[in-house]
Amino acid sequence: MELLKQKILREGRVENGDILKVDSFLNHQLDIELLNEIGKEFKKRFAEENINKILTIEASGIAIACITAQYFHVPVVFAKKTESRNLDKETYESNVYSYTKEKNYKIRVSKRYIDKRDNILILDDFLANGKALLGLKDIIEQANANLVGAGIVIEKGFQKGGDLLRNDGVRVDSLVIIDSLENGRIEFREQRN
Amino acid sequence: MELLKQKILREGRVENGDILKVDSFLNHQLDIELLNEIGKEFKKRFAEENINKILTIEASGIAIACITAQYFHVPVVFAKKTESRNLDKETYESNVYSYTKEKNYKIRVSKRYIDKRDNILILDDFLANGKALLGLKDIIEQANANLVGAGIVIEKGFQKGGDLLRNDGVRVDSLVIIDSLENGRIEFREQRN
Repeated sequence: MELLKQKILREGRVENGDILKVDSFLNHQLDIELLNEIGKEFKKRFAEENINKILTIEASGIAIACITAQYFHVPVVFAKKTESRNLDKETYESNVYSYTKEKNYKIRVSKRYIDKRDNILILDDFLANGKALLGLKDIIEQANANLVGAGIVIEKGFQKGGDLLRNDGVRVDSLVIIDSLENGRIEFREQRN
Repeated sequence: MELLKQKILREGRVENGDILKVDSFLNHQLDIELLNEIGKEFKKRFAEENINKILTIEASGIAIACITAQYFHVPVVFAKKTESRNLDKETYESNVYSYTKEKNYKIRVSKRYIDKRDNILILDDFLANGKALLGLKDIIEQANANLVGAGIVIEKGFQKGGDLLRNDGVRVDSLVIIDSLENGRIEFREQRN
């Protein structure tokens, strides 16, 4: 997705070797017009699928999921990362390790909001080691729902999450794949659209 | 906002006396069409204001802020609740007590994304004790930005946040105000639109 590549080249910052900061438009400040273009692109890529629900994970996934859901005309469900007395007792749970935060956490989805009739598209901002996505996949499987695929805004192709999921039979569709951040230089993989 | 009242009466559940669960459409599963109506209503109410940024707080505020931002054509910034090595070192911070989670937490906004030129609309799903809103207001003041007002989807009128903020000179515009949840019955305040 050329527009996204240009935005990343213009505003992305490479830090500590392997961190790509895109918080001016994707995960702290949110560029809503760009998110709309991202939403249209996901719709185009998954147009032939009969998706009835979008699943994501708090927090920055929510922005992408909500804007994109407008093009699919489906509800969004976001997995919760934090304990809350407001969450239902009956939940699907999975354990996720966060490399960014260097700790394990539980993700939860209420059993009310996902079930075996669902055809689910997962959306998220980043795919790196794939732990969050595997957690969401685990929850979808627990609910006996169908995972149609995963739409990712930025995949770090030099980390193992993408291969892990694709080898596991998941359709992963990333709008851009970054093959290297070495020496602070952002290198995109060539992709066919 | 009549549509929202009807949705709350149809799908809201009162638990533990003072908790109103609206997680089928507002803060776990998200009804995107309803969020669009909410967004239009906020635009109508703040149409005469020269807003150039929407500020909210993760997680469920993000959904409302993103959908609403489309009607204002402005970016969203969401305050982060969690530590992350991805967040800038230079941040505005404020301490917030959460009654839901029964603990204090810090909220943070990078200094890059809010400054004295900003006319900011705060948006959030709930207003109860007002602690999160006061934290966001504190951050806006630290940045010497201008707080135009706060748009709230559901205000719990029987808790003190709304009065606290209004007495402090903040324009608080709540789409519905609930005066009582006693005996599991949802009582709305009469509002002029």
